Amino acid sequence: MTASTPIRDPAEIYRRSFAIIQAEADLARFGADTRSVVVRMIHACGMVDLADDIVVSDGFARSARAALEAGAPVLCDAEMVRHGVIARLMPAGNDVICLLNDPQVREIAARDATTRSAAQVDLWAGLMGGAVIAIGNAPTALFRLLELIDAGASRPAAIIGIPVGFVGAAESKEALAADPRGVEFLTVRGRRGGSALASAAVNAIAGGLEGHG
Amino acid sequence: MTASTPIRDPAEIYRRSFAIIQAEADLARFGADTRSVVVRMIHACGMVDLADDIVVSDGFARSARAALEAGAPVLCDAEMVRHGVIARLMPAGNDVICLLNDPQVREIAARDATTRSAAQVDLWAGLMGGAVIAIGNAPTALFRLLELIDAGASRPAAIIGIPVGFVGAAESKEALAADPRGVEFLTVRGRRGGSALASAAVNAIAGGLEGHG
Repeated sequence: MTASTPIRDPAEIYRRSFAIIQAEADLARFGADTRSVVVRMIHACGMVDLADDIVVSDGFARSARAALEAGAPVLCDAEMVRHGVIARLMPAGNDVICLLNDPQVREIAARDATTRSAAQVDLWAGLMGGAVIAIGNAPTALFRLLELIDAGASRPAAIIGIPVGFVGAAESKEALAADPRGVEFLTVRGRRGGSALASAAVNAIAGGLEGHG
Repeated sequence: MTASTPIRDPAEIYRRSFAIIQAEADLARFGADTRSVVVRMIHACGMVDLADDIVVSDGFARSARAALEAGAPVLCDAEMVRHGVIARLMPAGNDVICLLNDPQVREIAARDATTRSAAQVDLWAGLMGGAVIAIGNAPTALFRLLELIDAGASRPAAIIGIPVGFVGAAESKEALAADPRGVEFLTVRGRRGGSALASAAVNAIAGGLEGHG
């Protein structure tokens, strides 16, 4: 195999990718079940130092996995997150839902002078109890989720809270990590995040390491 | 405005985000039209140092923009890229196409012992002339694209080649930057990349700075 012969076999690409991640990333502080989630997230972004910024509660992977096995839906803040989730991996044919384009969202956003991403979280209320939440885009969605829980909304089984960006992203994730309201959670400190990381975490929990290449 | 009052107004979030990027990122080496693409990409990943790894040909933004105005399709290697592209921004109602789930793809991938991502590129052949290509996931897709151009396929108007990961990503992007086959291109050196960056570049060219928050 020379530099001019790229590796094309999907299984071999996976094997080598995960070997590089295991060799380069500092994964020692994660439990075995969390480690597979972290590896998959690193794989999705190409940055082994992401591991250093991950904050995750001890029961996160177990709680999220149990929820999926029990048929809980996955609630996504962006269509990119929803389309990054690999439906065939879902252990109970779980619904993967994004309500950003629901006709009510624009109205709620205008009424509350907020983003559509945050407005859609109001529509999650009846679906949230025991669900897996995957926020990969909007800080305002994560802030709104925490507000709704504080106001008495049913608690999700697990929150993947990884909004990305320069305004509110770090702050919303610090708010989650500082007080997760008794909910198992995973987040990434700082500005990094995004839909690929959020869907990679869901896919890892759903039990597969396929879908890339 | 205190730390406990998150900013929710989408226009204000944009304004502050772009001001932070302008202040922190080194954009001096980019022309004005390219700069807006780079800013949008940084916005999508939360990392101002991404600018340092971007390699872009002088005519890239102009060529890609002209192609979209002329009605050219956008060919995406992943559903996440396709769903990250904001359809309403397209200047000519352009088609945004991903063929990863085309029934022929699995067959071609098995025949050629390659990834589905690379196999789908074979199906782009008739659509490629003058198109905008957006590869945000698979190194194998970018390698295959270069092979098809070398074999005489019609040249696209512009290639956004930003696969992510540990095996082949850096190499495929170096191959593009070292010899773009006369095609205008944009890439990111190294392991970083991804569907959010690829669709952010398309959205910047399509002319808008909306869709996040």
